[in-house]
Formats: sequence, structure tokens, C-alpha cells
Amino acid sequence: MLKSFSSTQKAYIAGFLDADGSIYARAKPNHTYRYGFQIALYVVFFQSAKDKENFMQVCRLIGCGRIRERSDGILEYVINKTDNIKEFLKCVQPYVVLKKKQVELMLRIIDVKKRGKTKNDFESLLKLVDSYRELNYSKKRKHRVLTP
Amino acid sequence: MLKSFSSTQKAYIAGFLDADGSIYARAKPNHTYRYGFQIALYVVFFQSAKDKENFMQVCRLIGCGRIRERSDGILEYVINKTDNIKEFLKCVQPYVVLKKKQVELMLRIIDVKKRGKTKNDFESLLKLVDSYRELNYSKKRKHRVLTP
Repeated sequence: MLKSFSSTQKAYIAGFLDADGSIYARAKPNHTYRYGFQIALYVVFFQSAKDKENFMQVCRLIGCGRIRERSDGILEYVINKTDNIKEFLKCVQPYVVLKKKQVELMLRIIDVKKRGKTKNDFESLLKLVDSYRELNYSKKRKHRVLTP
Repeated sequence: MLKSFSSTQKAYIAGFLDADGSIYARAKPNHTYRYGFQIALYVVFFQSAKDKENFMQVCRLIGCGRIRERSDGILEYVINKTDNIKEFLKCVQPYVVLKKKQVELMLRIIDVKKRGKTKNDFESLLKLVDSYRELNYSKKRKHRVLTP
């Protein structure tokens, strides 16, 4: 796993993430969850499937995600387990330039997600999740009603 | 300039180049050149203009290119002077993973371009330039007639 890697390997992955990666969180409606929403976290790398063989080298270097081939010929390498995301981001954080704010926000979300138990905590968490819309230039705004 | 930078800075740029950069050469028809073609060399980085401020940080780090804003909202940072490309690629080469072959081919093209004087040399150079089509997955094939 990345933690054991050299500083130049971590810096390489930071550059790759900055250029072509994405860090974001989503509140997915799901009635089996306590307040009606599942908070899903993502770090994703994208590359053309034409370059699969080489891209797999980078994926193996990262080592804690899974590959998915989209129907439009794009490969996604997705890290979505909270502990893996945290460990991954802690490793690359010192070298990230473009996505500094996204990294900080994700680490804060993970922190609040682990800590929070009350409805108020969950509402704070949703606000943090929504902050990604501004950082990542998404125009959509969501209005959510928590259950119960 | 990049030469004076730390190994982690060079590795970061290598990751950025691998994820979202492009290395290529073109033979542009130009009757003022000896054999009717100008060999133009490029290392280009791409990023959305929405993230201009942060992207400029990376561009300043590289320091030897120029920025261009396309009408489709994409920023290009272009290095096209032969000596700058050579120095840049020598710096990032040890850290590049995905574009190893493109880097090697460009350094070979620069070498042949500087050395070659005869029509045979120029024909060899054109063959090398055409090799980028395979490496970069372009389907077009060119048939060129040299002058005089």
C-alpha cells in the first residue's frame, strides 16, 4: 500500500490525481440508513481504456481501489472505502497542488462521519458534502429532507 | 527552471504529465523550409479554465512554456522550444510511467533533428514523427512528398 512508498512515488500519484483525478462525496437516498441517506465517498482516477496496460501499473501502485471500464471507453480506478481514502489522502496530501481544498474537505468529512451520531451531526455532514459542489464546479443544488 | 527542482517536484510533474499531458510531433507543410516541412515538437498540459488560478501554479512550477486559452474552455500549457522540451523531459523521465515511450521517442527525434542535414536524415526524422501516431492512438496515416 501507498504508505510504504517513497516520497517521489507519492508525489507522482499526487500529480496524477491533480491532473486527472476526482475527489467527491455524495448523499445517496437510502431508506435502510438512519437518516434516509448514505454518505458515499470517492477518489477516482480516469484514463482512456486504450492505455489500459500502462494505467494498470499506476493502479497497482495505488493498490487500494478497484477498476471499472465504462461503456464510453473510459477506465475508472475507484477508491471508496473510508479507511483506504483516508490513508491514501494522508500520503499524497503534502504533494497535492490543485486539489488541496478537496483533500482537506474529504478528511474533514471522514472525521465528522466517524464522530457524529446525532441528527445535528448528520446535518453538518450533509453541508460538508454539499461544499464539494462548489469546489468541483457542479451547478446542481440539493434540498434534502432527513428521515425520520 | 525545473532542473533545479527537488525530486518530488519532478515526480509530481511526471504524474501530471502522465495523467493529462500530451507529447507529440508534427510535420507541418511549409515551403520556406528546406524539404517543404517544418518539424514542430510539443509537450502540452490540459486543464479546465475553471481551475485557472490553481493550474497557473503548476505552470509556473514548469516555467518554460506558455499558456493558451481555447474557445472550448480548456487551458493549454504548451512547451514547444526544442531545448526547453529536452531539458523538461530529461528532468521528468526517471519518474514517468505511462508515457515512457513518448518521452524516449521525443528525445530521439530531438537528437536526429539536431544531427541530420541530408534528405535521408530528414526522411528518417519523418518516420520517427509518424511513430507518434501509433503511440498516441491516432488513426490517420500521412503520405508526404519532400521538396525539392
